[in-house]
Amino acid sequence: MVHAETSTGVRNPVAEVGAFLKGSETIYLVDTVTSLAGIEVCMDDWNTDVLYSGTQKCISCPPGLAPLSFSDKAMAKVNGRKTKVPNWYLDLTLIANYWGQNRVYHHTATVNMLYGLYQALLLIFEEGPDKVFQRHRESHLTLVNGLKELGLTMLVEEPYRLPMLNAVCVPDGVDELPVRQRLRSEFKIEIGGGLGPLAGKIWRIGLMGHTAKGENVDRLLLALRKALGRG
Amino acid sequence: MVHAETSTGVRNPVAEVGAFLKGSETIYLVDTVTSLAGIEVCMDDWNTDVLYSGTQKCISCPPGLAPLSFSDKAMAKVNGRKTKVPNWYLDLTLIANYWGQNRVYHHTATVNMLYGLYQALLLIFEEGPDKVFQRHRESHLTLVNGLKELGLTMLVEEPYRLPMLNAVCVPDGVDELPVRQRLRSEFKIEIGGGLGPLAGKIWRIGLMGHTAKGENVDRLLLALRKALGRG
Repeated sequence: MVHAETSTGVRNPVAEVGAFLKGSETIYLVDTVTSLAGIEVCMDDWNTDVLYSGTQKCISCPPGLAPLSFSDKAMAKVNGRKTKVPNWYLDLTLIANYWGQNRVYHHTATVNMLYGLYQALLLIFEEGPDKVFQRHRESHLTLVNGLKELGLTMLVEEPYRLPMLNAVCVPDGVDELPVRQRLRSEFKIEIGGGLGPLAGKIWRIGLMGHTAKGENVDRLLLALRKALGRG
Repeated sequence: MVHAETSTGVRNPVAEVGAFLKGSETIYLVDTVTSLAGIEVCMDDWNTDVLYSGTQKCISCPPGLAPLSFSDKAMAKVNGRKTKVPNWYLDLTLIANYWGQNRVYHHTATVNMLYGLYQALLLIFEEGPDKVFQRHRESHLTLVNGLKELGLTMLVEEPYRLPMLNAVCVPDGVDELPVRQRLRSEFKIEIGGGLGPLAGKIWRIGLMGHTAKGENVDRLLLALRKALGRG
């Protein structure tokens, strides 16, 4: 299950599904690429077994690493394999040996990326995770209010909205691509277009990590007003 | 075939094997992790089909990327697959779509690493590949001569020696680990020990990329002399 679905801006009910799965033999795998460090993620409380993420979204670190965590139940499944993992690079049975006393060498790590991740996490813990989540929430609310003033509506119903990925309906009669292009060329702001069935119908505005700040939201709203010809 | 075998310091005959394979249906896969940018690598002239490397050896860039190249013959093999690649992350049929007109998105690239690689390659081409190879060769010869003066011998016969990975025999009666530990703690120089059957019998001295310089060799030789109690 994808926790924060970037193609739609929907927060999926990871906790609720986890509660439903409690006591089952299902291995519950959750993608927190876009959610981690932007909204609360509770691996154990939500009964998740495998949780992975990326560094380049709300953690605000360069892309290139995938932090991941396995529950005891998931590791028992991995260690109980009857066949060898056919892939060396992603073989968790080998990677896992890096922990513990032996620290068996698996591959040359992306050392500089690890320093980057260390620093990014340090900044998050210095600010405090709760304050980081609050900052994402407040930036999101400021954005939603500003969009409302511009006469724009959100794609997703309020209880399911993600703070870090805001799907905004393109108003009737507006060609969405020139608006994005103008935002990019004139204001140096990049927002996403819709994907698949939502292509041409929504914009996707990210407020992740260091970009989730009131000043950035204000700048975007001003730029969007001008790009829509309403300034 | 591994071109530059870091566990032994041997240069394998990639060109000769390639000539032998010419005209065959064999897909010739060559690991140039340690050789690329330290000695000559001629993908086409040597009839290699798949060539891959790393950024953290002679290219002198942080670790985290694996430059790779496929011949038309290898790509025909890939594109002629009857089954889908079972692995998304390493699926070359998808990654390859990034080339050409479509530039189909595969995954978020390690952007900062790519900038690093660009800069590292720029430095190599500014110096000139031939001069870079010569610098590796000269550093290696300086090291071999200095080791000889210390009474040490090389593991590998001269025609098969790699300039960037120098396997040195541990002299009789010398406990190799304390020597490496002293080099590291007292002189801030790290050299490798032997692996597998060569554990305890050799040291492995890397001269790769920016470390392949006379001043570094001199510093190591002086430190080694002291660590061996011959200073």
